[in-house]
Amino acid sequence: MNPDNIRIVLVNTTHPGNIGGVARAMKNMGLRHLYLVAPRDYPSEQAVWRAASATDILDSAVVVPTLHAAIGDCQFVVGTSARTRRIPWPLLGARQCAERIALASAREQVAILFGREDRGLTNEELQVCNLHLNIPTSDAYSSLNLAMAVQIVAYELCMLASTTELPDSEVDQWDAPFAALHDMERFYTHLEETLVDIEFLDPAAPRQLMSRLRRLYNRVRLDEMELNILRGILTETRKWVKRARAGKP
Amino acid sequence: MNPDNIRIVLVNTTHPGNIGGVARAMKNMGLRHLYLVAPRDYPSEQAVWRAASATDILDSAVVVPTLHAAIGDCQFVVGTSARTRRIPWPLLGARQCAERIALASAREQVAILFGREDRGLTNEELQVCNLHLNIPTSDAYSSLNLAMAVQIVAYELCMLASTTELPDSEVDQWDAPFAALHDMERFYTHLEETLVDIEFLDPAAPRQLMSRLRRLYNRVRLDEMELNILRGILTETRKWVKRARAGKP
Repeated sequence: MNPDNIRIVLVNTTHPGNIGGVARAMKNMGLRHLYLVAPRDYPSEQAVWRAASATDILDSAVVVPTLHAAIGDCQFVVGTSARTRRIPWPLLGARQCAERIALASAREQVAILFGREDRGLTNEELQVCNLHLNIPTSDAYSSLNLAMAVQIVAYELCMLASTTELPDSEVDQWDAPFAALHDMERFYTHLEETLVDIEFLDPAAPRQLMSRLRRLYNRVRLDEMELNILRGILTETRKWVKRARAGKP
Repeated sequence: MNPDNIRIVLVNTTHPGNIGGVARAMKNMGLRHLYLVAPRDYPSEQAVWRAASATDILDSAVVVPTLHAAIGDCQFVVGTSARTRRIPWPLLGARQCAERIALASAREQVAILFGREDRGLTNEELQVCNLHLNIPTSDAYSSLNLAMAVQIVAYELCMLASTTELPDSEVDQWDAPFAALHDMERFYTHLEETLVDIEFLDPAAPRQLMSRLRRLYNRVRLDEMELNILRGILTETRKWVKRARAGKP
């Protein structure tokens, strides 16, 4: 994927706050190129405020009078759309669409069009598109805020760009190595002895107590520091039992 | 997945517009239950305006003074977080986290916590969580708008709701219900008192001991029987300390 070949195109946006929200959403997800086709109220303080630390996206936004001026040089044009249109067009969900966009962006100029807050894109505008993109929503209320729609599409693109975002395995993000089995077994012996010592566990009638404790601590996978803490607690506990049995304060 | 068992919890939100944006994002994606912990400026016209046709979510939002009042009855608590914390906590990306949330919601009450616009959740708030959720972003600008963050998480949940191919819930294969948060908090109080009592924890220099123990037991998600066992051990331990201090065998 090449984010420099992807542009977000907002058509006839009414509320400048949405333009600012879009700029922030883009920058959060690593997109840079914003085109504004005949915005109703722009530039605007409200846009700057909502953009937060993404005012650089606003500063470099390209304001044009017509859709054609925004996308004339693009090889791949995607239009966001509600599900039902009179003439069916190739339509994919945001996730699959993001894959197509990412692929195309390697070599081509790609535009993603977002329509008016109240009416979306016109049929004419949708018909310049190679592909329509739909964001799955609840049937009860399918009208997404404009900046939210951009956020979701940008997020799906970001998910494709970032294979290294989170550490691969649990171990990489942890601050102590996980305990080895022989350490766990020593811990269970220590635990069982202590429970007998404090008379919580009756060796004559152990029931399932140790099984349940084994299940608990094996399920969590203790790290070595946690294991040391728990063993420290057991050691201290047994000292108090010894002291109590000796009868001296 | 059962959306009725999922609540979105906003902690100390500053801008009412964001609360409205969250309500709309939730309804768009089929979520219904919004909790507001000590919002700075609410109710508010700005919230209503941004909610658009989701004012019903605002009308039924539960406003509470403390985080505990919002999530005390929850068995599974997820906190949104930046990547780096001093004590690493189990952390998943939004997509994988949504799977865990969807699974748990089949039978349990699930809370997803979103922090303040400027500082997110505090370390203390993050430490009541079973799991941390991170939304992948660009390294250049990782601070998402609050409503955008909710939108992405809600979208990931919505994507799962539309496919029904989830495995059986963890709860279905378990023999005891998982503990609710208010029971866990009582356990942590009991544990801390006991550790002070046996002089393993020095209240004057607590270091990270309780944080590490919270992480351990929140990670594993204790079931109610395990919780009873652990509390029984603490109760017996304290008896021995008392006996030792009294100096009688």
